[in-house]
Amino acid sequence: MIRVVILGSGNVAQHLYTGFLDQKHAKVIQCYNRKRLLFHPAQEENSITDDIGSLKEADIYILAVSDNAITPLSAQLPFKNKLVVHTSGSVPMKALCNLNKRGVFYPLQTFSRDKNIDFDSVPICIEAEEEKDVHLLKDLATPLSSKIYEISSDQRNILHVSAVFVNNFTNHLFSIGNDICKEHNIPFEILYPLIQETAQKVIQMNPDQAQTGPAIRKDTKTIERHLNILSDPLQKEIYQTLTKAIQSKYGKKL
Amino acid sequence: MIRVVILGSGNVAQHLYTGFLDQKHAKVIQCYNRKRLLFHPAQEENSITDDIGSLKEADIYILAVSDNAITPLSAQLPFKNKLVVHTSGSVPMKALCNLNKRGVFYPLQTFSRDKNIDFDSVPICIEAEEEKDVHLLKDLATPLSSKIYEISSDQRNILHVSAVFVNNFTNHLFSIGNDICKEHNIPFEILYPLIQETAQKVIQMNPDQAQTGPAIRKDTKTIERHLNILSDPLQKEIYQTLTKAIQSKYGKKL
Ligand SMILES: NC(=O)c1ccc[n+]([C@@H]2O[C@H](COP(=O)([O-])OP(=O)(O)OC[C@H]3O[C@@H](n4cnc5c(N)ncnc54)[C@H](OP(=O)(O)O)[C@@H]3O)[C@@H](O)[C@H]2O)c1
Ligand SMILES: NC(=O)c1ccc[n+]([C@@H]2O[C@H](COP(=O)([O-])OP(=O)(O)OC[C@H]3O[C@@H](n4cnc5c(N)ncnc54)[C@H](OP(=O)(O)O)[C@@H]3O)[C@@H](O)[C@H]2O)c1
Repeated sequence: MIRVVILGSGNVAQHLYTGFLDQKHAKVIQCYNRKRLLFHPAQEENSITDDIGSLKEADIYILAVSDNAITPLSAQLPFKNKLVVHTSGSVPMKALCNLNKRGVFYPLQTFSRDKNIDFDSVPICIEAEEEKDVHLLKDLATPLSSKIYEISSDQRNILHVSAVFVNNFTNHLFSIGNDICKEHNIPFEILYPLIQETAQKVIQMNPDQAQTGPAIRKDTKTIERHLNILSDPLQKEIYQTLTKAIQSKYGKKL
Repeated sequence: MIRVVILGSGNVAQHLYTGFLDQKHAKVIQCYNRKRLLFHPAQEENSITDDIGSLKEADIYILAVSDNAITPLSAQLPFKNKLVVHTSGSVPMKALCNLNKRGVFYPLQTFSRDKNIDFDSVPICIEAEEEKDVHLLKDLATPLSSKIYEISSDQRNILHVSAVFVNNFTNHLFSIGNDICKEHNIPFEILYPLIQETAQKVIQMNPDQAQTGPAIRKDTKTIERHLNILSDPLQKEIYQTLTKAIQSKYGKKL
């Protein structure tokens, strides 16, 4: 059985804790966080600590803390030569203090406090300095998820910037759609099926083939009418920038 | 039984034809298109025409043709005082020739030739000049979809610009994610679960609450690293514009 210590009490720490709860192959033997927060009613009081000095002996220490806390916290750990991993998409593995064996256990998903995640479909990107630690991380990930990828720090960086486009920026487009509907007293939920289908399509066809709309059609009249509807200058700018990008990308093919 | 004639042979015409195929309450008695295209093997040859002069007597004529063909085609119809509707999100109802009774039957979804759609979840936005035609369109839509909305031309315009953000522009962000991954030999499919979850979240929480990422965190270091990774100037511009918009929208709350 793989003994795990989770450090941090944010979204990722909580979801990881819950993910490991039903597993036989691994056990979270201790949690460290500054507020001594419990993740689950069944969690034993003495398995939580706010004292970095009293961390228990374990096989893997998972630092699920804010990106900028990874380096300082890893340097505070009171032991050497243990496997210490972080969960960040953008921090290099080598940002961890080199007194321990370093690795990454990056769940490529968007976690929120109040929304459960089916871990089985969460891609887990792993990296470690030593081959046997790669195996240990794979062993840890296998019963949790059916999608495990060995990914270098450089590749993880690329994935992270792509994730910003398909998640953070996409969500902002949803928030603009929501604002426009609200401003005109139209229920935003009318657009839910379209949003779901847009996301479904990407699995079945290349997004270049799925591209439709006034921009790719060079439908100048509609584009102008849309720009007149938008009252917010930033919404206008996003509309223009994305329209220009779509026309530039597919211009040659039209 | 409601007798329907469908004009046009594009994505919407084909999906509508298929949607009505299993219905008892309505029957597509004829299809008009310039290429005499068949939509289905069971379709009878003599129910297809390319001659606008020989349209059959029906209760509803659906013009599922390109936006800019709606006005001229509606003016060519060889009859008067019949209910004629178009299927466009952005064309006003009054763009139809006023010799007939006018209406709109707008399925708010993204249709592609090779992808089936479950019509039951497609919101149908209807509009008509006369109350009894609104009822007829509702009768036509009811067995097809569980989401029917009476929407004015002005509201439809608003929905359409929102749809451009949540569908066309979102799809372009997916295509950028795909390009970035391809450029660096990383399988884009690693991002599919994140894309699905992003779209799922919007149903369960307000997109403003779901916003995460370096922009809202004002994580300047990560933003800079990402901009350095992007080689395409248009990708850079989109990254900067959306980052600025997110920071401006949530700036006060941070
Ligand atoms: N959220 C996601 O969707 C997601 C997805 C994949 C990966 N990640 C990565 O996972 C890591 C954690 O993200 P998160 O979303 O869980 O963050 P979060 O919800 O903001 O929580 C951050 C946690 O870090 C702790 N922390 C911050 N500074 C610390 C320090 N100096 N010493 C000890 N603990 C400290 C915080 O503790 P206090 O409460 O005591 O301040 C808190 O428990 C990050 O590297 C992030 O990039 C996040
Ligand atoms: N695609 C979508 O996702 C979607 C969703 C909701 C609503 N709509 C709306 O539905 C309508 C049709 O869209 P679509 O995607 O089905 O278009 P499409 O696939 O591009 O097909 C356009 C059709 O219009 C016909 N057409 C063009 N000019 C014509 C004319 N002067 N006379 C007769 N037929 C003419 C074309 O016939 P030929 O093949 O003979 O040229 C073709 O059958 C548009 O108003 C669109 O805005 C589309």
